[in-house]
Formats: sequence, structure tokens, C-alpha cells
Amino acid sequence: MKLYDYKLAPNPRRVRVFLAEKGVTLPSVQIDLRAGEQFTPEFRAINPECTVPVLEFDDGKRIGEVVAICTYFEATHPSPPLMGVGAEDQAIVAAWQHRMERQGMWVAADAFRNSAPGLKGRALPGPEDYAQIPALAERGRARLGKLFELLDGELANREFVAGDRYTIADITALVTVDFAARFGVTIPNASAHLQRWHQVVSARPSAAA
Amino acid sequence: MKLYDYKLAPNPRRVRVFLAEKGVTLPSVQIDLRAGEQFTPEFRAINPECTVPVLEFDDGKRIGEVVAICTYFEATHPSPPLMGVGAEDQAIVAAWQHRMERQGMWVAADAFRNSAPGLKGRALPGPEDYAQIPALAERGRARLGKLFELLDGELANREFVAGDRYTIADITALVTVDFAARFGVTIPNASAHLQRWHQVVSARPSAAA
Repeated sequence: MKLYDYKLAPNPRRVRVFLAEKGVTLPSVQIDLRAGEQFTPEFRAINPECTVPVLEFDDGKRIGEVVAICTYFEATHPSPPLMGVGAEDQAIVAAWQHRMERQGMWVAADAFRNSAPGLKGRALPGPEDYAQIPALAERGRARLGKLFELLDGELANREFVAGDRYTIADITALVTVDFAARFGVTIPNASAHLQRWHQVVSARPSAAA
Repeated sequence: MKLYDYKLAPNPRRVRVFLAEKGVTLPSVQIDLRAGEQFTPEFRAINPECTVPVLEFDDGKRIGEVVAICTYFEATHPSPPLMGVGAEDQAIVAAWQHRMERQGMWVAADAFRNSAPGLKGRALPGPEDYAQIPALAERGRARLGKLFELLDGELANREFVAGDRYTIADITALVTVDFAARFGVTIPNASAHLQRWHQVVSARPSAAA
């Protein structure tokens, strides 16, 4: 089994942090997205979507969505649990993880990919070229501000995003916050609860993964 | 336990089809999105996100993401399995379900909400108003065309979206296809495999849910 990865990209980092929390190590292959290695015929044969991460099983089967890769390791390495314990908690964690993607990761990607000079004509990852939409970048930045407000309010009442235990929802939120900071959208000083949470999750050894 | 629902909206339909496949019936409350009932103070107290579906437990806890609600019922009503059997299959189903959202449901929502005259200033669901972005509607329609091509190719080799068994990925794909048809983006006649699949999944009793 191996992981196609790229050290500088936010989505593969979500898998790396998840695996570090589980204590799982995997051989990995770096696909240099800045050098365009995701578009080589060799990598297209591995993942026609031209994205990382991709988990490859020894029989050649491949899975290319972060949450799916995490689902696999949650089932095979249940301890520590990162996707909830019992039906109700699993649902609550799934809801927050999903929301952190919809209102976080994908929104940060909107903000970044629709404005970065190096991504002209590449507003979406994948094999197709799409023009940048400046209004979408602007909307993305505004929405990240709203997300930070929301999370600050939620984290006033509990330690972690989905409850009193660190979960995959914290990982998605952490990677979103750190990704947004790279293009200048940062947690406001006034958002003390979100700041506190960010310090806590960043201090975990897994955050360096 | 009850479900806040709206018969005409695509996201709650995903939950209804899932429950119908499981043979689960729940009391439901219709929130008339066309009449703006999601913005009443009463409903904002139930879900500040102003969206349906919402699953409400008897103790008052609430979950408001489709995949999270389905996660709950998969755990409590495992038969028939709709989210995979065993770690590897669960991951494959999660990958396809997720992809059907990212490349399907959310893209159809881009296409619809950024162009529908009745949704001016409401390009996103939720409590905030965002202006429509016409370029995003146009991109959404183009991407749905690409999705139909992709699915037609995939379904040449297997019966259902995630393999040889009907799963949540088929539900997300079915609801996406039917939603897109409402604004004129339909499966091309040449996409025989996708047409075949659509007939099969539409003929299941759950499709009427």
C-alpha cells in the first residue's frame, strides 16, 4: 500500500495528519504539483483526476478522496477514534467534517485558485481547464471570515469542532485555517476561542505531518 | 425523532431515498423553502444554517448534513447496506459518494442558484446573502456535461456508481441528474450507459420518495 502525496498541498496534509494521529506510517510518492507532475501520462494513468492524495492498495485498487482514505483507516485502525464512537457521535462528527469541507476547504480553494497568478486558467484542479472567476475569489474570502465567526462561537462551548474529542473535523478545520493564512486570510484577534483551539490543535505532533 | 424536510428540494430527497431503501419511516415537518419558511425565527432556532434536511433526535440534538444523517441510519439500520461492506468497500463507496457531491450536487447548485431569476442575491443557501455569479452558473452547466461523460464511461464497466451494488453514491448521482434536468441539463442520448443506469435506479420504489 502507498500514498501519492504532495508535501505542500492542503488536501494531502489532511490524510497525513489523520495517519499521524493513528500512528500509521505508509510509503509515499511525492507528486510535485508545482512542477505539473500530476499531468504526466504516468500520473494520469494512476489518477485521471490529476489530484493527490491517492491511496493505492497492493492489488492496484486506488482511492482518491480524502474522506474516503480516512474512512478506510478508521475501519482498519479504529484507535484512537477520529470519526466518532457510536451511531449518534459518528453522525455528529460526519456533519462537522462535512461542513468544514463545504464551508472551509472548498471555499478556501475558491479564494486561492480564482486569484493566484500562477493558476490562471486553472481555477479548478483536475484534467479540465477553467478560467478564474475573480468574483468567486472575493466571495471565498468573505465566506472564510464568516466561517471564522461561526467557529469562534461554536468553540466557546466546547473544546473541539465536533465535541470534546479531537476528530477528523478538527483536521479539516486546521488545514483550512492554515491554508487560508497562506493567502492572507487569518483568524481575527478578537476570535479568542478559535485562536485557543488553533493553538491546541497546532501543538499536537500530528500537525507537523 | 423527526425530519425537517421539503418535498421539492434535492438535498432532502437524498435522505428520503436513503430511508426508503432502508425501509425506515420518520415523522417529517415540511419547511416550505419557496415561501421562505427557512428564514422564520422559529426555523432559525432549529437550524441557524436555514437549510433542510435536519434530523432531530428526541433529546433535541440536531444534525443537518445529508451524509451525516445517512451515516446515522447506516449504523442503526445496517440492512441493506448502502455505504459499503468492509473497510475497502466502505472507502470506495465514500469516495464515489463524495465525488458525486463535489462534481455533481454542488455543481448543479452552482448552475441553478447563480442563474435562477427567483434566487437573485441568494446564490448560496444559508443565512447570508450572496450575489449571483453568472460565470459560475455557466461553468456549472459545462461541468455537469463533463460529469455525465465521466459517469457514462464508468457505468460501461459496472452496474452502479460505486460497484455492483446500489449505494448512497447512486442516490447522490440520481438526485443530481434529476435536479439538473429541472434546469435543462439532461443526459445526452449518446450516453447509453448512463441512460441505462438512470432507468434502473429511477425504477426502484425509493426513487419516488
